[in-house]
Amino acid sequence: MVLEALVEANQGHALAYGDDPWTKRCETLFNEVFGQAVTTLIAVNGTGANVLALAGLLNQAEAVLCSDWSHINVDETGAPERVLGAKLIPLTSVAGRVDVDAVTEACRALGNPHHAQPGVLSLTQSTEWGTCYSVDEIGALVDAAHARGLRVHIDGARIANAVAALGLGVDGLRAMVIDTGVDAISFGGTKNGLFGAEAVIFLNREHASRAVYLRKQVNQLASKMRFISAQFCAALEESRWLDWAGHANAMARQLHAATAPLLPEGAIASPEVNSVFPVLPPEAATTLQEWCFFWDWNTAAHQYRWMTAWDTTPEDVSRFAAGVKHVLGH
Amino acid sequence: MVLEALVEANQGHALAYGDDPWTKRCETLFNEVFGQAVTTLIAVNGTGANVLALAGLLNQAEAVLCSDWSHINVDETGAPERVLGAKLIPLTSVAGRVDVDAVTEACRALGNPHHAQPGVLSLTQSTEWGTCYSVDEIGALVDAAHARGLRVHIDGARIANAVAALGLGVDGLRAMVIDTGVDAISFGGTKNGLFGAEAVIFLNREHASRAVYLRKQVNQLASKMRFISAQFCAALEESRWLDWAGHANAMARQLHAATAPLLPEGAIASPEVNSVFPVLPPEAATTLQEWCFFWDWNTAAHQYRWMTAWDTTPEDVSRFAAGVKHVLGH
Amino acid sequence: MVLEALVEANQGHALAYGDDPWTKRCETLFNEVFGQAVTTLIAVNGTGANVLALAGLLNQAEAVLCSDWSHINVDETGAPERVLGAKLIPLTSVAGRVDVDAVTEACRALGNPHHAQPGVLSLTQSTEWGTCYSVDEIGALVDAAHARGLRVHIDGARIANAVAALGLGVDGLRAMVIDTGVDAISFGGTKNGLFGAEAVIFLNREHASRAVYLRKQVNQLASKMRFISAQFCAALEESRWLDWAGHANAMARQLHAATAPLLPEGAIASPEVNSVFPVLPPEAATTLQEWCFFWDWNTAAHQYRWMTAWDTTPEDVSRFAAGVKHVLGH
Amino acid sequence: MVLEALVEANQGHALAYGDDPWTKRCETLFNEVFGQAVTTLIAVNGTGANVLALAGLLNQAEAVLCSDWSHINVDETGAPERVLGAKLIPLTSVAGRVDVDAVTEACRALGNPHHAQPGVLSLTQSTEWGTCYSVDEIGALVDAAHARGLRVHIDGARIANAVAALGLGVDGLRAMVIDTGVDAISFGGTKNGLFGAEAVIFLNREHASRAVYLRKQVNQLASKMRFISAQFCAALEESRWLDWAGHANAMARQLHAATAPLLPEGAIASPEVNSVFPVLPPEAATTLQEWCFFWDWNTAAHQYRWMTAWDTTPEDVSRFAAGVKHVLGH
Repeated sequence: MVLEALVEANQGHALAYGDDPWTKRCETLFNEVFGQAVTTLIAVNGTGANVLALAGLLNQAEAVLCSDWSHINVDETGAPERVLGAKLIPLTSVAGRVDVDAVTEACRALGNPHHAQPGVLSLTQSTEWGTCYSVDEIGALVDAAHARGLRVHIDGARIANAVAALGLGVDGLRAMVIDTGVDAISFGGTKNGLFGAEAVIFLNREHASRAVYLRKQVNQLASKMRFISAQFCAALEESRWLDWAGHANAMARQLHAATAPLLPEGAIASPEVNSVFPVLPPEAATTLQEWCFFWDWNTAAHQYRWMTAWDTTPEDVSRFAAGVKHVLGH
Repeated sequence: MVLEALVEANQGHALAYGDDPWTKRCETLFNEVFGQAVTTLIAVNGTGANVLALAGLLNQAEAVLCSDWSHINVDETGAPERVLGAKLIPLTSVAGRVDVDAVTEACRALGNPHHAQPGVLSLTQSTEWGTCYSVDEIGALVDAAHARGLRVHIDGARIANAVAALGLGVDGLRAMVIDTGVDAISFGGTKNGLFGAEAVIFLNREHASRAVYLRKQVNQLASKMRFISAQFCAALEESRWLDWAGHANAMARQLHAATAPLLPEGAIASPEVNSVFPVLPPEAATTLQEWCFFWDWNTAAHQYRWMTAWDTTPEDVSRFAAGVKHVLGH
Repeated sequence: MVLEALVEANQGHALAYGDDPWTKRCETLFNEVFGQAVTTLIAVNGTGANVLALAGLLNQAEAVLCSDWSHINVDETGAPERVLGAKLIPLTSVAGRVDVDAVTEACRALGNPHHAQPGVLSLTQSTEWGTCYSVDEIGALVDAAHARGLRVHIDGARIANAVAALGLGVDGLRAMVIDTGVDAISFGGTKNGLFGAEAVIFLNREHASRAVYLRKQVNQLASKMRFISAQFCAALEESRWLDWAGHANAMARQLHAATAPLLPEGAIASPEVNSVFPVLPPEAATTLQEWCFFWDWNTAAHQYRWMTAWDTTPEDVSRFAAGVKHVLGH
Repeated sequence: MVLEALVEANQGHALAYGDDPWTKRCETLFNEVFGQAVTTLIAVNGTGANVLALAGLLNQAEAVLCSDWSHINVDETGAPERVLGAKLIPLTSVAGRVDVDAVTEACRALGNPHHAQPGVLSLTQSTEWGTCYSVDEIGALVDAAHARGLRVHIDGARIANAVAALGLGVDGLRAMVIDTGVDAISFGGTKNGLFGAEAVIFLNREHASRAVYLRKQVNQLASKMRFISAQFCAALEESRWLDWAGHANAMARQLHAATAPLLPEGAIASPEVNSVFPVLPPEAATTLQEWCFFWDWNTAAHQYRWMTAWDTTPEDVSRFAAGVKHVLGH
C-alpha cells in the first residue's frame, strides 16, 4: 500500500518543498483525523520530529521536562540539547510514565533565575516501556502543565499503537490529545509501517507560527516532500494506520500468550501495545538474539524488548515462540 | 530504476540504522567510485548532509569559509549556525566561485583571539551559479586551505553534474576530489533523480571518527536506512549517476540553444552544467513562471534560473522554448 | 572615583546576584538617565552584553542584521553565533554605518523558508569607524526595521562618546534612543573609564521578560554584583559618564590637530568621537606601535586606529604627537 | 588586601586582554601553586569558568557526567547545555559525591550511536553538600574516567576550602589534582574573598590549545583583565587563599558547635568545609531568614544551608547562634 503510494507519487512532476498535491492531501487528512484544523509539518525522521516540535513549543531560556526513560532523554544522542540548546530535565518514571507530582515538583524551579525553567512537558505515548497513559492521566498532566505556563508535547512515535489499544478508533485520538489540550505531537509513521515518514502536528496552532523556518533549521525539510506525504496519505486513508497498529498490538498479545508459559511467573508482563519486555537468562537471550535480533532493554535486570509490527504474522509469532521454547530447553 | 530499487528493498525484513545489505552495498560502491576506502554516511536531506560534514570537520571554536552565494550561507535558513554554533564567513565570489586570494585574506584572522577562526573551507561544486571549479582550481584551493590548517568540504549537491561536465567518467571525480586532497563531500542524490537520498563521504577518514554520533545529533539518522541506501545503489551501479547528470547537462545545452536566439545578446550564458540563468523582462518572467514554475535568482538583475534534470526530455525543452517564444512575442 | 565606589561597596555585606543597594541605585539612575522606566541588567563584559541583548530580542529561528564591520560580526570570535545559534547577516557599510536601503534589501528574505529571517537590526553607536549615526538616521533605521517586524539593538560600547558628541547632554541620549524607538542597548562602561562594567538596557521592556534567565545562561550573571553596579553608579551620578566621554572626544580632536599637519593631506580624518584612523607608512606604524601600542585597523589600506580615553591628558597627546613627528622624520 | 591589589592595578596604563604584568604574575603564581606549568585562563564568573573548562575538554558529540546535585546541573539555568550544546548526564550522588560504579555504569553508553557519549566527568570539590572527595576517591574516579577515554574536570568554586580541610597546605592541592591526573579545574576566587575573579586551569595542557578562542566565545574574556588578575595575585601570594578558606572552615566548625546543642540530635552534621546544613522547623527557618538571609537547600527535608566566609568573625557566629537560640525558643 505504501509502495503503491510511492509509485503513484512518482508519476509526473510536482513542486518541491511541500507545494504538491500529496502534501496538501496529507494536511487535509490530518485535519480530518483530529477533527479540527491543525498545522502539519512533514518531517524526515523521528529525532528530528521531536526536536522540531520542541523547537516550536519552547520560549527563550526554557527547559523540557521528560521522563528519565524517554527517547528524547536516552535514545537521541543528545540531539535535543545540541539543536535546541535547552536542558532536558528527567523526571522519575514508573513503567515509563511520569505523574503530576513529579511535574509539580519540577515546576518549583519556576521563577528562580539560577535554575533551568521548565517550559515544555514532553510525554511519550505509548511509552518506551510499552505502557499507555490513560486519557485521564494525560488530561491531568496537561492541566498541571498549563496551570504553570508550560506547553505539552507528545512524542507519538507509537501513538497509533496507543490509540489502537483504546479501541475507540479515531475518537480515541481526539479524546487523548484534543479534549485534553495537548499542544503538539510528533506523529510517527516509520514505526507503523511507513518507509520513512514522520509529522509534527501543532494542535495549538499559535506555536506553529515559526515552524516552517524551524523545520529547515533543524534539518527536517524534504525537497521531494511528496514521497513522504504520499506514505502518510496511504496510512491515514481508510484509517489504515489504526488497523496496522491494532494488528501489531494483537500480535504482541499473541506473542505474550505463546511465551509466558515458557517463562517463570512474572517474567513477562501482558502487553498494552506492541512490545513485550521479558526477563530472560542472559545466555538464552544471547542465543536468541543471534538467531533473531532484538534489543537489550534493562541490562541490570536481564530484561529485553520484543517488538511486533504491522507486518508480523501469526506464523512469525509461532516460529519465534518455538525458538524461545527450544533455547529455554523445554 | 530508483523505484525498482525501493521495491526490492521492501522485500523481507532488515536490521535498522544501516545494518542492512543495501547500506553495506552502498558503502562498497562508494569505495569503488572513489577508488579507495572512504567513510560513507547516508543522510536524509541536503542541508543535513552539509551540516553533518561540517560537524565532522570542525574543531573547537572554528568557523567556516564559504562563498557569499553558497547554499549553506544563503539557502539553509541559518541551519549551520544553529546546529553547529559556528560562524559562516562569506567570501566574495565571481560566478559562484571563490579564489585563493579570498581564502588567504580570510585566514589572516588565524591566531587572533578576537576574530572567528577559519577551520573549514566549503566549496560548492558545481556552484550555485551553474559554474564548475576546474580540477586545478580545486587543487589550489585545497593547498591554500591545508597550508593554513583548514580542512576542505565540498557541497556536492550537484557534484554529479560537475563530474559529468568533465567528461572523464569516474576518473574525473577522483581527479577532482581524491588527487586534490578534499577532506569530505556532501554527495547529492536528490537533485540527480533520487527520491530523497544524500550521503556524506569522508575522504579523509580521520575526520569521521565521531560521525555516527554526529549524524544522530544533527537529525540525519534514518532508521529504515535501506530505503535510502537502495536508491544510491541504483544510482551508483553501472555509473548511472553520471549518465543521469550528463543527460541533464545536455538538456541544459539544448535549452540554451533553443532560447538564446529569442533573447538579447548576452542575456543567457552557455551552461556548464544543468542550469541556465537568463535575464528576462520581469513581466514575461512572471507569465512564464505561472505557466511553468522556476525560481527567481538575482532579482536586482532580473535574472532567473532554469534547471534541467535527469528526466527532462528533448520534447520538454522544445515545449518550454516554444512557451518562451510565445511569451516574448516572437 | 570608580575606585572610591568600589571601596565603599566593599564595606559590610550585601546580598548576592543584584539584591543589593548599589544595583538598586544603579537601576534608578538608568531610569533617570533615560527619563522612563527601563529594565537594566548588569553584565560582566561587552561581548556578553551584546549576546544577552540579542538573546532577549530574538524570536525563534531569527537572524541578526548588522554592519559588515560591526564588533559582533568581526571582533567577537563567533560568540553570537555560538551562544545564540543565530546567523549574523552582514550589511555593507560606509564609514561603519548601514543605511535603510541595505536593511530593506535584506528584509526581502522575510517569509521565504529557505532564507535566514531577519529579526533584529543591530547598530553600533558610535560605530567601529569612529563615526556616529545622526538621530534622524537612527530614527529612519528603526522605522524601517519596525515596519518589517524587526527589533532594534544598539551596541553602545561607546554610546557615551556618541551622546557627548551631540552636545545635548542626557537629552541627546533620549532623542537618540527613546524618541526613535530603539528596543535595547548594550550600554558600555568599560571603554568609558570603568574597571569592568557593562549593562543591557531594555527600553522596550516586553523583550526583557526572560532576561534574568538569559543572563545566567549566557554567562553574564555576577554574584557580587554590587562591585559592578557601584562602578556604574559612580559614572551615572552627576553625569560623569558624559564628562568622561566628552573629554575623550576632545582629546581625539587635539590628537588630530597635532598630527594632521605631519601627515599627507587626507591621511587622517577629523574625529567625531574618541578615535582617529590615520593612514601611515607601515614601517613608521610598526616603529610607533613598538613604542606605544595601538591596533592595526584596515591592513590593506595601511590604516591604523588611535584611541583617546577619559584619562588621556593633553600632555599624553603632545608626547604622542611628538613621537609621530620623530618617527615620520619631520 | 584585594582592594589594595585593585588600587595598585589602577595605576598607570596596561595593555588589555591579559597582556599585562598582573596577569603574567598570576600565571606564574598558578604554576608555582601547582608545582608545574599549567595553562591559566582568567574568567569573569563561575558559570562561565565551568562552561569554558568543559568547552576545552569536550570533543565532538560528547556529553558530561556530573552529580545530580552538581552546580552545573542544578544551579546554572541550563547555561552548559545552551553554550556547549552538550547533554549533562546526572549521576546519583550521596552527600554530593558520585562514585566509580556510577561512572562505570554511565559509560556503558560508549560506542552506542543512539546514546549520548560521555566525554568528561565533572566533579565538584568541595561538593554542593559541603563534603569533600578524599584524594584516593578522586584518584579512583580519574582512573575510571581515563580508562574509558574521558577527561576529568573539577568544579573548584570552593576548592580552597577542600584543600584547606586537608591541612597539608599547597601540597594537598597537588596531591588532590596533579598526582591524581585531573585535566582541568575551575578555580574559584569569588567565593573565597575576591570581588569577582575566577580562573580555569588546564593541568593537562593539550586540552588548552583552543582555550583563548573558546574564552571569548563563551563570553568570559575581560578586556581590563588586570583588575581580575590582581585579585588572584593577592590571594595566591603568601598562600592567603588557603588561610582565608581555612578560616571560613574554622568558623563553620564553630557555628556547628554553637548550634548543634540547640537542635535535635542528627539535625546538623559536623561540617567538612564552610557550610552546614541544618534541618530546621520551617517557621523558625523563615523567621531566621528574614533576620539574616540564607538559602533553602532541600525543601522536602526542611534542610537549609548556612555558609561561613573568609571574613566571618567569631562574633558573627556567636550573634547568629544567639539568634538561632532565640528563634528556637530555648
